[in-house]
Parts: sequence; structure tokens; C-alpha cells
Amino acid sequence: MRIKAFKGCLEGEGIDCFILSDVNSIYYFTGFLDVPDASNTLLVPLKDQPTLFVSSLSFKAAEDSANDCDIEEIRREEKVEDKILKKLSDPTLRNVEFDTMTIPVFLKIREGLNKAKLSPKPEIVWRLRRVKDDQELEYMARAARIADQGMEAATEAVKPGVEEFRVAAEAEYAMRRMGSEGVAFDTIVASGRRSAYPHGHCTAKRIREGEFVTIDLGATHKGYRSDITRTVIAGRCDPKQADIWDTVLKAHEAAFETIKAGIKASDVDRAARAIIENKGLGDRFVHGVGHGVGLNVHEPPRLGIDSPDTLEEHNVVTDEPAVYIPELGGVRIEDTVVVLKRRARRLTATPKTIACG
Amino acid sequence: MRIKAFKGCLEGEGIDCFILSDVNSIYYFTGFLDVPDASNTLLVPLKDQPTLFVSSLSFKAAEDSANDCDIEEIRREEKVEDKILKKLSDPTLRNVEFDTMTIPVFLKIREGLNKAKLSPKPEIVWRLRRVKDDQELEYMARAARIADQGMEAATEAVKPGVEEFRVAAEAEYAMRRMGSEGVAFDTIVASGRRSAYPHGHCTAKRIREGEFVTIDLGATHKGYRSDITRTVIAGRCDPKQADIWDTVLKAHEAAFETIKAGIKASDVDRAARAIIENKGLGDRFVHGVGHGVGLNVHEPPRLGIDSPDTLEEHNVVTDEPAVYIPELGGVRIEDTVVVLKRRARRLTATPKTIACG
Repeated sequence: MRIKAFKGCLEGEGIDCFILSDVNSIYYFTGFLDVPDASNTLLVPLKDQPTLFVSSLSFKAAEDSANDCDIEEIRREEKVEDKILKKLSDPTLRNVEFDTMTIPVFLKIREGLNKAKLSPKPEIVWRLRRVKDDQELEYMARAARIADQGMEAATEAVKPGVEEFRVAAEAEYAMRRMGSEGVAFDTIVASGRRSAYPHGHCTAKRIREGEFVTIDLGATHKGYRSDITRTVIAGRCDPKQADIWDTVLKAHEAAFETIKAGIKASDVDRAARAIIENKGLGDRFVHGVGHGVGLNVHEPPRLGIDSPDTLEEHNVVTDEPAVYIPELGGVRIEDTVVVLKRRARRLTATPKTIACG
Repeated sequence: MRIKAFKGCLEGEGIDCFILSDVNSIYYFTGFLDVPDASNTLLVPLKDQPTLFVSSLSFKAAEDSANDCDIEEIRREEKVEDKILKKLSDPTLRNVEFDTMTIPVFLKIREGLNKAKLSPKPEIVWRLRRVKDDQELEYMARAARIADQGMEAATEAVKPGVEEFRVAAEAEYAMRRMGSEGVAFDTIVASGRRSAYPHGHCTAKRIREGEFVTIDLGATHKGYRSDITRTVIAGRCDPKQADIWDTVLKAHEAAFETIKAGIKASDVDRAARAIIENKGLGDRFVHGVGHGVGLNVHEPPRLGIDSPDTLEEHNVVTDEPAVYIPELGGVRIEDTVVVLKRRARRLTATPKTIACG
């Protein structure tokens, strides 16, 4: 069904054939999920059955799980670009487009094509993938529930003297025991001055009393990801910290209240940003308020001040305003939410509080 | 120092400027480790100080940790390719090369260059990165010790009735508690017929008595990764399974015995393959015997029958022959080893036994 919808998009754009290399797009269309492998490619000709090329490493797995396509093995001594070119030898082909490709493969296929033009057009896949169906929403709700358990374990572990690593250990262990297929992205536990890094990863540093600890994590279920952030303080919190934390929470709520089908993504960002700017902290909020989530942890739509996107029913997006102050630290509060007709619904549901332990 | 050595390579190849986008190469040369970000780029002109372009998200972190380069922020409304082109406006430039780039960025930079040629040449970075210095070897030894602890926890957890997820949970928890920066790659716990998939990932399936369980995992320390695989059986093991397991272990040992500086990578593969072929199982060993490991989990050199590589002192590589038999299952046994002048030394050291629990 998804292939049929995709062909509808191709036809509308006058595309004769589309070459997909993104592992998650291949999974989306065929049900075959693999680790990234340069050979794995799904060729979708407008007028023919799709062909899935897979390396020998994955051939058996593909045979067992891939639907709606022919499967061809790429053996050790073969190159997928040669097999693609063979399939593209039809001289009536005009427009061949693709999602992503390495430069050498791009140059070789472009060189080898008869008269067809070869161009990148990743956005066409996203027209479909960004709108989640009921089954996908169910998987994402499950990934979000697992992430909530991880966050609960993490905030319980945050205490003065505990290493950031240990907090991540507890969070990931809780998620794995619930059946997470792995983390949705590298878990962030960033305390003290590193909480002011938007991508603060996690280290052997011991958490100290009174500093911000930003925990950003996610789980994966059936390939679908979740994404949640909480910022807490171990022990006492001074009024200035509490004020920043409250501001970010208000910004998060303001963005949440605006989210619904048909609203511009930039308006959601603006709602959060206005509150942070009102506090004179506008230049401390250095990223957009959110991004789409699905099989990828970052995908369209993009929720930023300069985003051209409009939210649609059943997009799944993050709502994650933040304030980062070097030396003092940073606060980010994030939920993964579903866009509904007239409002948003949270998938992640961990209570928001600055206290922990 | 690394930048100086790299410039020596550039000069030898007649390259005027190199554009690096791989996060791990940027870390290797500057000490700044980030999550992948399309803006992050290190420009290395032959005759000038390198410039690190980083997105606003990472600017503060880069300022705190990047060495041997100027740092320029790429703000939300800016594009890194425009900044790169500005730096490349010198009309005497002839050869600009790069490691990796998206097609749109490649087309735009190529279009915008004066007279210089723009070409991909990832291999030049690997000349340096594949040979590890003492500090790198120390980090990798630590990553390997952590992986050994993970493997011990995993094999202890393997029992009839236990879910594959649970085994991964115990392994990853043990590694995190030892300070692993996260998994080196998605942990594989593949039991029964899925043990015959080289990339069998891990599921909610319960392990049954008498089936192969392949556990493939790694840890990360200071960005450096380790990679180890053991295949075990919960409970009784029939003679046919034992025979396959012994064959793979012998192949692993045979490859190990051949590894030393100056040997062809294809000869290492051949040593393992000969033993598996002797058992009539040559077509069940569908990949090369190993690959380089370092900041990337898969990097040069490649140890395959058709590899052009020659091993050098202080390469770090895997030794992982395997036999995959659909229906019956698969066996893979892998260590991460350092290539020395006259032999190899194992970094991972978990005992090899088919029993577990």
C-alpha cells in the first residue's frame, strides 16, 4: 500500500524511477530492517515491481522479512551501482531521483545513464513518512512509554556524587528490560556547565549538589523512536535557577498549546520563543523548538522560526524549548507529541519537576 | 601534530585544501567530539590554519575542546557551504578534496569554485587514522576490557526462556557501569534461526535450549570502540553443532596466527577460509574475516579475500570468521586484536566456550 502511495507521488512529479538507500525508508516500504549497508538499495520504478538489492550479509534476513518487492543479492565481488544501472537501461527513462547516495556512486550512476537525469529529492519520501498511520502511532506510543520508564530510573539515580554514566546506565537498563530495541540516540546526561551544551553527551563527571542535570533519552520499538528531556537539580535550587526552569516550562506549554493540524511550524516556535525573549533570554535559545520523530530521531517537519513546514494531522514532533547559559548551565524540557486535528497529545508523560532522587 | 602529518599527505598528493565532515575525523584532528551535524566541517588548507565550522548548537562545546584550529559558528540562517566557498575563493587553488558530502552540498561547492577541481578522496585520512598511537591503543584496550565485562554479563544471562532483549540489557548495563560511553554499535543477541543472520540484531524472542545464541557487542571509551562476538548454546549441544563451533574457532585461531605487520589482509582471510572450506562450508562464510576498528566500528583496513590492503604495525582489526546455516543457525567468534611487528595481540579476552549460564 505504501509503495502504491509512493508511486502516486512519483507520477505526480513526473519521476520514472526512485532510488532509496536510507535504511529506514527501506524498512518503511518493505518491512525489512537492517543495519546501514552500502549495498542495500530499494529501486522503485514507476511502472514495475520494486527491487530490493541486499548484500550477501543480509540476503537471508531480507528473504524472511521483505514484502512487496523482488530481492536481488549483491555478492562480495559485485557493486550495487552496476546492478542499478542494468535496471535503468531503458532509454525512455527521463527522470531518476534518489534520497541519498555517496558521491562516487552518484557520479558513476549519472555517468552510466542513457538520457535520464539523476537528481536528489529526499523530500518526496517524507510526504508519506511524516504522516503516521494508526499502527505507527501505536508503536511510537510504546516507544514513549518505555522512555518514560527510562526517565523515571534516571531521575531516581541523580544524586550528588553519582557519575553521569551511572545515571545513563540505570535509564538504559530500565528501557532494555522493557524491550527497547536499543537507545533512540546516544543518551545525554549533562551536568553543571555541560548542561549548557545542547548536545552534552555523558561523562564520568560526578553530579554536584545544586547544579542543573539535563537528561535527554529515547527508546526504540519496532524501529520507531521516542525522545524526551527533563532537567533536574540534585538538592537545593536557587531562585535564579528556578526562574529559568519555570520560563522553559512555560515556553514548552505555550508551544504545546499552539500545536494542531494546519498551524505553521514557525508559529509553534514563535510561541515558545516569545516567552523566553520576554525574560531577555532569546539569544540563549539557540535551536528550533522541535523536530519530527519517527523511524528517524530527527525527521521532517522541522519546528523552527524559519521553517517552511505546516503541521499535519498525525505528524509526531518534539516540543523542546531550552535556555543555555555558559557557566550557569542549561535547561531543556521536551516531550514527544502527536499532532491532532484541533490539539496535540503527549506521548511521553513523565511529570515535570525540578526536584529528583 | 596530526594536522601536520595530514598536511604532509596533502602536499604529497598535490592537494591544496581538504574538507572533512566525518565527526570522528574532526575529533581525531581537533579533539572536538560531537553528534553528527550537517554544519560541522573541518577545512584544512595546505598553507593555512584549519578552520572548524560548527553549528550554534555545538559552538560552546567546540570552543571548550577543539585545538589546532580556528572556530567559526554557523548560525541558524547560514549554510556551511557558503562559508566554505568564501574560504576557497583563492583563484590559485587547483585541487580540493573531501571525505564525504551530501550530493546537494557537493553540487553547490563544485559549482561555486573558481578553477579548482572538487573530488572525493576519503582514503587519505585513513592513512593516518588506521595506524593507532600509544594513547589510542590504551583507549582501545580499555574499550575492549569493558566489552569483556559486557560479554561475561551476557553469557551469564543466557538461559532457556530468557528473552534476547534481557541478555542485551545485562551486557549493556555492565558496560555502562564500567563507564562505557554507550554501545559501539547496536548489540546483537540472535538465537536460533536468526543466529544465521550475520546482522541478527535482538528481539523479544525467548532463547530455547540447544540453539545457537550469537552475541556481538562493543563498548566505547574516549570515542574508541571495541568489537567482540561469542556464540554459545544454552544447555545441550549436539555433535554437529559442536563440530561447526570447533571449525569456526580453528578458523579464528588460524587467522590470528597469520596476523602481523606486512602481511596481506587477503592472506589473513584465506587462512581462516581454508579451514572452513575444508569442512565443505566455504559458501556459508559470506563475509570477510575482519575489519579495522577505531573511532569507527568499521574502518580500514578490510580483511577480505579481495582486499588490496596490507596490515601495518598498530592497525587494530577484528578476527571474526563465521559459518551461517539457514534453519540450523550460525556461529561467529570474534576478537579485536592489535597488529604488532611479528604477531597479533588480543585486546578482547573473554574465554571462548560453547557453554554458558
